[in-house]
Amino acid sequence: MAKVVVLHSGGLDSTVLLAQMVAMHGSDQVESLGVHYGQVHAKEMESALEVCGILDVRRTMVVMSMAHDFFGDCALTGRDSSAIPDGHYSDDTMRSTVVPFRNTILLALCAARATAIKAEVIAMAVHAGDHAIYPDCRPEFLSAMDRVLMCGDYKPLLLDAPFLNYTKAQIVEVGVKCRAPMGFTWSCYKGGHVHCGTCGTCVERREAFIKAGVADPTEYFQTPPIPLRP
Amino acid sequence: MAKVVVLHSGGLDSTVLLAQMVAMHGSDQVESLGVHYGQVHAKEMESALEVCGILDVRRTMVVMSMAHDFFGDCALTGRDSSAIPDGHYSDDTMRSTVVPFRNTILLALCAARATAIKAEVIAMAVHAGDHAIYPDCRPEFLSAMDRVLMCGDYKPLLLDAPFLNYTKAQIVEVGVKCRAPMGFTWSCYKGGHVHCGTCGTCVERREAFIKAGVADPTEYFQTPPIPLRP
Repeated sequence: MAKVVVLHSGGLDSTVLLAQMVAMHGSDQVESLGVHYGQVHAKEMESALEVCGILDVRRTMVVMSMAHDFFGDCALTGRDSSAIPDGHYSDDTMRSTVVPFRNTILLALCAARATAIKAEVIAMAVHAGDHAIYPDCRPEFLSAMDRVLMCGDYKPLLLDAPFLNYTKAQIVEVGVKCRAPMGFTWSCYKGGHVHCGTCGTCVERREAFIKAGVADPTEYFQTPPIPLRP
Repeated sequence: MAKVVVLHSGGLDSTVLLAQMVAMHGSDQVESLGVHYGQVHAKEMESALEVCGILDVRRTMVVMSMAHDFFGDCALTGRDSSAIPDGHYSDDTMRSTVVPFRNTILLALCAARATAIKAEVIAMAVHAGDHAIYPDCRPEFLSAMDRVLMCGDYKPLLLDAPFLNYTKAQIVEVGVKCRAPMGFTWSCYKGGHVHCGTCGTCVERREAFIKAGVADPTEYFQTPPIPLRP
């Protein structure tokens, strides 16, 4: 048993991770950390709060304010959500959703909070599907961050990324096993009232439930056939 | 010549660094980045703006909002500024001014901004006097962060920390050479109208000017004899 701070966006992956950590360590040993960095899909923050209520986990937030172009022309944090591309998550166009050094920022804040509450572990739900598109989801990056966490404060912190080599379908399977409230999670990058069903993360989400053979609890605006991966 | 983002608090060290970078690369190639993480000594933010005006450098800000105890019982971000200890910077009591993983957070934001504006270099004014008390000011930490900056995004970033082995007195000497507006900088952790003259950073500041043999342009509330280092 350990005390753990989980990077928790309110999305599918990090909610399954939170539920798994609660199953392993108990809800009083787990804290959910949310970071708002200007993402237009702020709806996941509401989902995160609901999930924390269901799992009886303490939620902590950091809200960052900066100029809308602080992260460059990233579609995730820009003012024009119509710029969010449709199609497969691994498509080249999805590069526009890269927030530079996002995971470095998130892990740094998570490490700070973990040190403050004397937690030994920080956990993040990075998974295999992310590697291709996001440099800061690759094993090399995590091992580099590991070194920072070993020497960045008086006590070393452990970085747990149990889904690093999982597909999203495998994460859904873990979610079923640890009774994660997957129906309350939010993935869509477009920030509508229901999941759009066509943006990169929606397509990936739909596909994951199908591949896992698990009924998808999500309400989608539309569910056109999922395009074959290029 | 390169494009550089400088972590710039408005304090003495980072202002000298900013002036040095401007002297080396030109003011249009340099951006000053400030991060507000709840520190009570927000007065340095005003100093930073004044300095940027004088040096004709663009200033960018990130303001982070979080619970007052997010960083634990750190005196720098707490609600009670009377908790800021007096005496030498290296005293054990100054441990209470440690913001866990502060430099990791700051460097991550700086790296994100550098990537966004296609800068090749990020620069920070960490110096030898910081090593003893802050784990994230030590050479091991910077080399660990270096690896993160090499693989955290599509293009590697260079981390420049030219004062790493300098004393604060040597930084003052550099400041004179590159005409840094040192009189406009702010060091005091207590957040009053003028520098208190007795907190750890004020003592260190006074000492640096004396050792460098440079007239101190700072107005202090009081200037009792500087205690001998224990």
